[in-house]
Amino acid sequence: MKQTVPPVFDDDFRSILISLFRWRRDVRSFLPMPVPQVILDHLFELAHLAPSVGLSQPWRFVMVENASRRSAIKANFEKCNAMALAGQNETRAGIYASLKLAGLSEAPCQFAVCTEAEPEQGHGLGCQTIPEMMSYSTVTAIHTFWLAARTYGLGLGWVSILDPEAVIDVLDLPKSWKLTGYFCL
Amino acid sequence: MKQTVPPVFDDDFRSILISLFRWRRDVRSFLPMPVPQVILDHLFELAHLAPSVGLSQPWRFVMVENASRRSAIKANFEKCNAMALAGQNETRAGIYASLKLAGLSEAPCQFAVCTEAEPEQGHGLGCQTIPEMMSYSTVTAIHTFWLAARTYGLGLGWVSILDPEAVIDVLDLPKSWKLTGYFCL
Repeated sequence: MKQTVPPVFDDDFRSILISLFRWRRDVRSFLPMPVPQVILDHLFELAHLAPSVGLSQPWRFVMVENASRRSAIKANFEKCNAMALAGQNETRAGIYASLKLAGLSEAPCQFAVCTEAEPEQGHGLGCQTIPEMMSYSTVTAIHTFWLAARTYGLGLGWVSILDPEAVIDVLDLPKSWKLTGYFCL
Repeated sequence: MKQTVPPVFDDDFRSILISLFRWRRDVRSFLPMPVPQVILDHLFELAHLAPSVGLSQPWRFVMVENASRRSAIKANFEKCNAMALAGQNETRAGIYASLKLAGLSEAPCQFAVCTEAEPEQGHGLGCQTIPEMMSYSTVTAIHTFWLAARTYGLGLGWVSILDPEAVIDVLDLPKSWKLTGYFCL
């Protein structure tokens, strides 16, 4: 796949790329059959092509397959979602309650994406004044995965209504990792 | 450009998309002639196709053209960069000093990208437990701009060695806006 001569991206390609931007989908409904492993592997591999501050590549992808961990994460979502609902005013509460905000019971493929707060790689370059740059790098990896997934006809559900520290605990991950997002596919 | 029938993204398109991921460039050298306004406008428009939490679209793009503001931002970079250099150990200091980390004197086009911390749009949906979701949405808009820019043969320089609050002050922006990044093109 690698080339040494910079490619030219023509108008036809740009037009389909724009269509990809338009048709990328955040989904909350999932088919029961799992995404083929070969496609998943390819998407995770492509995510590593994302930019990162100081080439730190601080993203950490964690597949979540264990049933009891999935249940704990679903319970955490339900707790956080109930609190968010309680914080809505009367007009908005009905609308909020009607939204499907996760698909944690159905989604056959689930993974967490974390950020190593102080990775050795990159030596902290470019992060002194805006330490969030690490998480921002991880977000570009997620977005790369998301766009590439759509080329396989796949949407992705980004679940953000979770207590990030609780998820790190449930998954027994290093304390230096910060949850960036939890995803259903 | 809009279609109502979901498009199919074939293997040929995916192959060029992967090439785009590989050839997206963070640049520190700039040609003296400005990027044509029609291309800039198109890129900013495309950035709005990025995903955002609760469809909040919290990104705010701010062109920086005023010479004294540019000077103030360059001075801020130099101060922050000197501090970052001072924080390097002996082995790394020489390497650090040799890096070109900005192009603030040469880049004909410069803009800040900010995040409205609590935008009305989206009603704060999905942001209660992870408020950083707003900035993460802005990062996907930046990444969309970046990928689309490459189809025009353009790299983008993300300058993160800046005091984010100082940049908000220099640009006289609302205090509820947070600097996500500063860019050279």
